[in-house]
Amino acid sequence: MNPDLRKEREAATFNTELLTHILDGGSERTRRRREIESLVIGDPDFCHEDANFLSRSERYEAAVKKSALMIMKMREYGISDPEEIYYYKCCVHRGRPEPLDLHLGMFLPTLLNQASPEQQDTFFMPAWNLEIIGTYAQTEIGHGTHIRALETTATFDPATQEFVLNSPTVSSIKWWPGGLGKTSNHAIVLAQLYTQGQYHGLHAFIVPIRAMGTHEPLPGVVVGDIGPKFGFDEIDNGFLKLENVRIPRENMLMKYAKVEPDGRYIKPPSDKLTYGTMVFIRSMIVGESAKAISKACIIAIRYSAVRRQSELRPGEPEPQILDYQTQQFKLLPLLATAYAFHFVGQYMRQTYHRITGDINLGDFSELPELHALSAGLKAFTTWVASAGIEVCRMSCGGHGYSHCSSLPSIYVNFTPTCTYEGENTVMMLQTARYLLKSYTQASAGQKVSGMVSYLNEMSQQRLQPQQVSARNSTVNLKDLSSLVEAYKIRASRLVELAAKSLQTELQLMKTKEDAWNHCSIDLVRASDAHCHFVIVKLFCSKLAEVEDTAVHAALYSLAHLYALHGVYQNSGDFLQAGLLTVPQLTQVTQQLKELLYQIRPNSIALVDAFDYRDEMLNSVLGRYDGNVYDNMFEWARKSPLNQTEVHNSFYKYLKPLQSKL
Amino acid sequence: MNPDLRKEREAATFNTELLTHILDGGSERTRRRREIESLVIGDPDFCHEDANFLSRSERYEAAVKKSALMIMKMREYGISDPEEIYYYKCCVHRGRPEPLDLHLGMFLPTLLNQASPEQQDTFFMPAWNLEIIGTYAQTEIGHGTHIRALETTATFDPATQEFVLNSPTVSSIKWWPGGLGKTSNHAIVLAQLYTQGQYHGLHAFIVPIRAMGTHEPLPGVVVGDIGPKFGFDEIDNGFLKLENVRIPRENMLMKYAKVEPDGRYIKPPSDKLTYGTMVFIRSMIVGESAKAISKACIIAIRYSAVRRQSELRPGEPEPQILDYQTQQFKLLPLLATAYAFHFVGQYMRQTYHRITGDINLGDFSELPELHALSAGLKAFTTWVASAGIEVCRMSCGGHGYSHCSSLPSIYVNFTPTCTYEGENTVMMLQTARYLLKSYTQASAGQKVSGMVSYLNEMSQQRLQPQQVSARNSTVNLKDLSSLVEAYKIRASRLVELAAKSLQTELQLMKTKEDAWNHCSIDLVRASDAHCHFVIVKLFCSKLAEVEDTAVHAALYSLAHLYALHGVYQNSGDFLQAGLLTVPQLTQVTQQLKELLYQIRPNSIALVDAFDYRDEMLNSVLGRYDGNVYDNMFEWARKSPLNQTEVHNSFYKYLKPLQSKL
Repeated sequence: MNPDLRKEREAATFNTELLTHILDGGSERTRRRREIESLVIGDPDFCHEDANFLSRSERYEAAVKKSALMIMKMREYGISDPEEIYYYKCCVHRGRPEPLDLHLGMFLPTLLNQASPEQQDTFFMPAWNLEIIGTYAQTEIGHGTHIRALETTATFDPATQEFVLNSPTVSSIKWWPGGLGKTSNHAIVLAQLYTQGQYHGLHAFIVPIRAMGTHEPLPGVVVGDIGPKFGFDEIDNGFLKLENVRIPRENMLMKYAKVEPDGRYIKPPSDKLTYGTMVFIRSMIVGESAKAISKACIIAIRYSAVRRQSELRPGEPEPQILDYQTQQFKLLPLLATAYAFHFVGQYMRQTYHRITGDINLGDFSELPELHALSAGLKAFTTWVASAGIEVCRMSCGGHGYSHCSSLPSIYVNFTPTCTYEGENTVMMLQTARYLLKSYTQASAGQKVSGMVSYLNEMSQQRLQPQQVSARNSTVNLKDLSSLVEAYKIRASRLVELAAKSLQTELQLMKTKEDAWNHCSIDLVRASDAHCHFVIVKLFCSKLAEVEDTAVHAALYSLAHLYALHGVYQNSGDFLQAGLLTVPQLTQVTQQLKELLYQIRPNSIALVDAFDYRDEMLNSVLGRYDGNVYDNMFEWARKSPLNQTEVHNSFYKYLKPLQSKL
Repeated sequence: MNPDLRKEREAATFNTELLTHILDGGSERTRRRREIESLVIGDPDFCHEDANFLSRSERYEAAVKKSALMIMKMREYGISDPEEIYYYKCCVHRGRPEPLDLHLGMFLPTLLNQASPEQQDTFFMPAWNLEIIGTYAQTEIGHGTHIRALETTATFDPATQEFVLNSPTVSSIKWWPGGLGKTSNHAIVLAQLYTQGQYHGLHAFIVPIRAMGTHEPLPGVVVGDIGPKFGFDEIDNGFLKLENVRIPRENMLMKYAKVEPDGRYIKPPSDKLTYGTMVFIRSMIVGESAKAISKACIIAIRYSAVRRQSELRPGEPEPQILDYQTQQFKLLPLLATAYAFHFVGQYMRQTYHRITGDINLGDFSELPELHALSAGLKAFTTWVASAGIEVCRMSCGGHGYSHCSSLPSIYVNFTPTCTYEGENTVMMLQTARYLLKSYTQASAGQKVSGMVSYLNEMSQQRLQPQQVSARNSTVNLKDLSSLVEAYKIRASRLVELAAKSLQTELQLMKTKEDAWNHCSIDLVRASDAHCHFVIVKLFCSKLAEVEDTAVHAALYSLAHLYALHGVYQNSGDFLQAGLLTVPQLTQVTQQLKELLYQIRPNSIALVDAFDYRDEMLNSVLGRYDGNVYDNMFEWARKSPLNQTEVHNSFYKYLKPLQSKL
């Protein structure tokens, strides 16, 4: 073990293991997680060559191999709980996406939720046994966010009892679905339904795309890989062009909407029945943000304790770079962010399960808020984590660029979350719509509940205008609950500001859509402030659950740092809201420096507590034992360019050139 | 041509060609640039397969091939002016780094600057003719920024008249030099010199590493590629371990320092003689930042004019996404940034040449400021451009992730500028050192000159404390020169704040190094504000040179947007300095929205003016003709995964699995 890391660990003020239990949600869950990890990591079948040294085709193939083995082994071990499947899958693929993701995560669940009982009989078991490998094809090359504009058509032909599917234009080609290019033999295709000459909107159809047995594309199907991307090298994101492809009437998913044999269309009982999956996935992404930024922090902070550079005191050895204030200022707020996002992720998961329970009991009341919150938090956390990973990478100097650090791979495989499952700006605007609706209700004296309940207070304030400034006494920077209060008031001010901006625009613009567009900067800003408040508040609430004093103290400092750093970065907002005075700004910096100083000795223990095994982290810089340089040299020697001492290009191009000049 | 793009171009309020001349620095330079571009782009020898479809080894080989051809052809065409060589090289490699970069950019110039006349006779012509292919090996696996800590040793042995070079530890292995892994047969190695038992610090040695003719590594030399990285796939960044490698005494670069045959060491006349190259490269990087962010803006803005999505007005066709305020707010400030950085790059190039002229006449007076400015601006512009490229990429939705957009490649090949040639935080602190020195001088009544001359005014203000608030009347948001003034005062305040913070720490800390470290957050902030001021000021000054009224108006709006957007993002600073009042904040947003509205109709013309040919941009999304989707489909079909309809992994893993489940 690197002596610096050993010293850091010995000096920690709390028991790392206790904190790991809190992060996992209990010691039993820690135990089981580790058990599953050991199952995979100790399994020689899952040993693998470093993916960084493979071509894309080889990476895809290695992933298919692992996915196939994984399915076999999970059945063997009887792993069937969704969360355990997720752990197992995550270990097998080391947190990378894999070719069966859409089959397991979208195709099967969509069958369960939207297929009629007869359809489940027909399709589910073959899909469960991977005779049918499916994907979910919605997005088209020219259409993403606005699903009403999708162009793929499904026209019912009563003569043959078939739907005829078509991609009428280049812009209507299905584009991006994972596993579509090479892996799947079926796709759930979202298409505009026409029957009896009438248009009935978007519906889902099970379309066979490759022949069972030979896996060759079926007639009328043009299918393939969309080419290399930023990350996702293991995935065959694909395209699909349908040319008069006929499928039986029974292949339309008919649990809710139906087309009868005579072509009659029967409407679904509600149009919000697919709402849940979307909310679920976005809630999960909040947890993914926490994971991604945690991994990046582990690597950057461990490496910063190992790397020594320059001179702080003349004559003394080079200091650990973690002792530089600028390095702490880059990394420790991100470490605090990682913790904040973990707890918010836990909250979202719990809330989702609670509300799903309510929904099953017929109570939909909390769904709109969860919908709005999951959209905004998905956007907020993925943006912050995505940018944060890059800060971590660059804080490692040159070595952060090497694939042996794993940081490039963490970035490219995480950053797509900013776009998929709801483009972030669109998400922020959805949250804003909810905030403005709540604002209007609160203004009208209706009580709003949940995370937006602060809007009730605001509306009271407006009724007594004299009290506003009295209420907004400035924040106490040393008190976390005072900071939470400040975030709340900031959010409420920015929601109000956006609402007023919208009112002004409504008086000027032709349509309410134009007015909305003309104040969308303000709307996004309001959503951002709302999400920021929610995160600070949830982090703070979590502290109340922590019993161990030493762990509590360590987490309290992190929560304090998280809140204060946000004030520093958004000082204009807090000044504007009268929550902060100009002289206090200097205190913000001073207080931040003190917190960095306080957290610094615990920083290694705080990243250790995330409990990522080296095999999962796969980073030479982030190794638990800190033996960075020997392992980096060993890794480099395996680079494919080192397979021969002299590269072919020397004989082909350099040597002939030398003789000509 | 896409009809939307045609309409955009027709509606522009200025002549694009005139603006291109301004960007190039004159119509004659535009003409010559285009001439050189045509030479390469029309040359069938340089036609190439899309690099995105190649393995790293193939990409390296393709680059070596092009580099070899390029050297031949430049000699053939008689291209020898450094700037023209740069253009030509850039076209051949489409702006990507290439294996001979270090040979051309570091090895040859170092020979010219640091080799004695006899050494030039020996080494220069062979290097010019590529018998000797060289690189520059300074950084070690465990040592970067702090070059005094480099561990490689060169010990003079008078018995054989040789230096003996050694890498005594793993951490001393040379690491990262471009072209070192496979391409070079020589390296200029920076090593700690020992002679007659005395240590004499870091010196440069020409070390043969591979045999002429066979290209096999020489005895005692362990050399190879350091493995795949984030970007730079064409480059064989390498490692070099030296084990008692002996080189003749004549291989130490001896223009300045010398070791005599008896081992006597002769000191160089000055230790600042290598200062210039560093300043030059950093100044050039400012221009590279401008190029990178320009390319990203061209792609994102053209695509945003082509892509239509969602609904603004019910019943109307989907709008161009460039009509969304949130999209404008992402992209147009970056477009303004691209212009700002172009003009700052021009200024740095001109200033460098002017000061080099002065230096040749023995006048070193302006060198320290240029050194400080190039460090800070290198950091400021690379950070902003790097983050900005990602904003552009994400503004393109899913397609921004595809390599066919070119955005991932622009990012990964540009982001290393944040680290190489001086790590950005270190750079900011170097600038801060200069600012604080100037502040101390100004405070003591000495007049400081150049970009920091505002510190003189500040010192006058302090003498008349009553006038401070009078002077800082709030900014006029509609007046660009008032904004420049505000940036100046902000910078001066933050320099003062950092200085005071340092004074406070000095009273508390043991050493001045500790004190410096404890206020480094404030120091970086001061440098950042200084650089920001310089950029706003230079952009504003440039406007005075623009004669054409229409072009002037278009650029004025951009400069205004650039300045105002910075106020929006750093409103806390401006409020703190009393330059802005709380009620004005709403006006800032309002004014920003008006500028977006004003610039929107010119945005395509403004990106066209950068005059990047499609062949250079290499982006399906950024095509001049806007025919995005057809070309994307065509591109995807060439993906290596589509070479066969059924991927091998089906037969190997999926089919066997299906039969087992």
